[in-house]
Order: sequence, then C-alpha cells, then structure tokens
Amino acid sequence: MLKVVVVGIEGEVNLGFIVRLCKNFDVDELAVVSPQINVFSDEVKRFAANGVDYLFSGKVRIYQSIEDSLKDVGISACTSAVIDTRSGDVLRKAIELQDFVKIAQSYTSIAVVFGRESVGLTREEISKCNLLVHIASNPEYPVLNLSHAVAIVLYELYKTIKKASLAEKIDKADEDSLKIAEKYIDALAKAVASDDRQYEMFSLTFKRLLRKAPLSKAEIGFLVTFIRRLANKILRQS
Amino acid sequence: MLKVVVVGIEGEVNLGFIVRLCKNFDVDELAVVSPQINVFSDEVKRFAANGVDYLFSGKVRIYQSIEDSLKDVGISACTSAVIDTRSGDVLRKAIELQDFVKIAQSYTSIAVVFGRESVGLTREEISKCNLLVHIASNPEYPVLNLSHAVAIVLYELYKTIKKASLAEKIDKADEDSLKIAEKYIDALAKAVASDDRQYEMFSLTFKRLLRKAPLSKAEIGFLVTFIRRLANKILRQS
Repeated sequence: MLKVVVVGIEGEVNLGFIVRLCKNFDVDELAVVSPQINVFSDEVKRFAANGVDYLFSGKVRIYQSIEDSLKDVGISACTSAVIDTRSGDVLRKAIELQDFVKIAQSYTSIAVVFGRESVGLTREEISKCNLLVHIASNPEYPVLNLSHAVAIVLYELYKTIKKASLAEKIDKADEDSLKIAEKYIDALAKAVASDDRQYEMFSLTFKRLLRKAPLSKAEIGFLVTFIRRLANKILRQS
Repeated sequence: MLKVVVVGIEGEVNLGFIVRLCKNFDVDELAVVSPQINVFSDEVKRFAANGVDYLFSGKVRIYQSIEDSLKDVGISACTSAVIDTRSGDVLRKAIELQDFVKIAQSYTSIAVVFGRESVGLTREEISKCNLLVHIASNPEYPVLNLSHAVAIVLYELYKTIKKASLAEKIDKADEDSLKIAEKYIDALAKAVASDDRQYEMFSLTFKRLLRKAPLSKAEIGFLVTFIRRLANKILRQS
C-alpha cells in the first residue's frame, strides 16, 4: 500500500499535478491534511488533466492531522529540502531517497509526507514520521517545487516497488537469431580484414556489441536482415 | 555537459518549472527549440521561483531546429510516453531511464529531448536522437506532465552523473568516430534496403545498437574501421 500525504497544501496547480502523478504512479491513497485550498476546484481539475478521475475515485481523503493520516502505515518518511549535515540535530538528519526506497521494500504499507510550499513541515510534524528523506540536488538551490518532489519520490518507489513497467515487457531477442547474425559477421569481417588478427578484432568487437546491448525481437530481426543482405552483396562480389 | 532540450513548448507554467528544475539539478544548458510561447514572460518567471536568475544566466538558448540544438552533443535521448512493446516499429522501441543513465555515464556531453505537451515529438524528431527513453509508470496512464518528466530524468542523471566519480569518459575524438560510423551505416542501409521504411529501420537499429553498448576506445576504433571498409566495398560496387 503506497500513500502520499500532503500537509497544508497552498497551491491548486500543485494539487492538480499531484493528483495526476498519483494516477501516473498507481498510488493507493492521496491523504490531504489540513488543505489551505479547495481540493475539488476547477484549477485542481484542470492540472490533474486525464488524472482527474483519480480525484473522485475514493482514493483522495481529507484529514485533520498528520497522525490520523498515518494510522495504518508501516513505514513513513517526511521529505525536506532543509537537512542538516553538520550539527547534532538528529531531527534534521536525512537519508538519501534511494536508501529509503530500499528500506521501504520490506514493508507492506508505505507513506511519504510532503510539507507546505511556503515553509515545509514543522519540527513536530517531522517527528511524527519514521524517517527524513532527502532528494539529491544542487546544494546551491536544492528547493524543489512541491509537485516535482512528489514526482521524483513516486518514480523511485514505483520503479523499485510497484510492478514491472512497459519497457521491461519488450521481448528479448532469441539466441538463434543472434547466432545467425554472428555467422554473417564472421563472413563480413573475413571479407574486409587485412589479416587474421584484424579479422579477429573486427569480428569479436561486433559480436560483443550485439551481446552488450539489450535488444528486442523486432530489433534483432532488422539487424539480422541488414547484416545478411550486406554479407550477400559483399560475398557475391568477391 | 548536461543539456535539456524542449521542443515546441506550449505552456508557460511548464517552462517556468523547467527553468527552476534546471537550477535545482545544475543543468548546463536549457535549449528551447521553436517555443510556442514567450520564453521570458511574467508567468514563466513566476513559476521559475528562485530559479528565475537561471533564465538570464546565458544558459537558456533558443534554437530553430532540433539538429542545431544537438550539434555539440555526444549522446542524446528522446523521451516519449508512447512506446511500443509488440509491433516491429523500431523507432518506438525504448529503453528504461535508469539504463540510459548508465549508458550516458561514459559520455562527456549528454542531451535529453522533451516534446510538446499536446502531441510529443514527431517521428522525424525522434529519429534525430540516438536513443528513446521510457520513464517507468502506470501502464494505464503513463502520460506524465512535461515538467514532471523533466524532474524525474534530471534527478536520475544528477544522482548518477553529476555526483559520480570520474569514470572513463568517451572523449570528443571517439564521439566524432561514432558520428562517422553513423554516416557509413546510413550509406550501407541505403545500399541494401528494399524501400524507405526498411532503410529507416536498418539504419536506426544499427545506430542505436552502437549507442546502447558501453564501448572502449579500442572497440570504437575497430568498429569504425570495420564499418568503413564494408561501406567502401559495397559503395564501390554499386
């Protein structure tokens, strides 16, 4: 269960974008704690774009306190641009986002908490979360806009925790086609190399190239046809 | 050198956010190709927030074509929500963002290209980039708002590359060699393809293969020589 908690949100553009992101990354609940705006306004709907149905899916819930929103949660992290690297203020000691994601993997129910656009989260609010998380960014201006911080956190969580994405489902090239391609590569290398050593280098480099890159079936199909035609043309000639 | 390229941008809110993100993630250039809005409007400035000085830092540049914006770039990736998992359309075959970041690590100069809010990038624009990248997200609604796609891509690149150790980079000479190899690949594909579409697929698949695999200097050398000799042999013949 993945939950996004926004505390005291002040901007309708941001809330609209966050609703859209919750649909983009298949978030189970968007908890809105003490909003300073009308959560269902036209502006929110406009920036939610095709994610607007998420707003009326029952997954957007309003709370009066951060504790209420975190009641059923296994692990929670606050996000903050203001972190501490030197002093002994434990409250402001943060871990990197990718480390949080690794930790969160072993929990069934995860919440990430985001503060106000203007002043973030209070010390008391930060103390309600299990961890404080930092998003790697330029130390000279680390302050991300709220909805962009949400985007980055959700992407990291989705990638690691939610199920496989579209591109991973691209079918892998099959062994046999690769072997056919390798035979033609040998023939081509032989046809243009000056000596045995160069033949070996040409052939090896090209064959390794094929194995290093992740290729789909369609791609290997085109490559094999391309290489075969080159070979036919060159071998007919010599 | 990290460059963000936005093509035909239509929204001032988005552009303002992207300017801010370029400061958040220490981007070296924001290339704005054929904008449909006033790049320096009050709305852009408002959403750039404290990143507004980036707009007047000389790092935001306007171009008329995507080619011009990519002239000095070692490796480029287009982003698209519309990718292909089943058919044979190689142009729409994408790799995952984190895999692109690993590949990009070995280049000194990297560009990421983002399309219009309404219709993304044209097929021709996609073909100008070395690779096509996909951001892992909910297959039921994978279409991210433009500035959120930028945020996620910049975060991944920043995390891995900006803070990264000085691993072996492909130097300028090697980048030039790869570009020469690409010209010969075009010529070879033209020589053996049955029609324009097959020419496009042959050429695109092979060129992307070159960019997907991490290659050493020596390997690039052998590959370029091999491809050049094949081209010389075949072109002499026809």
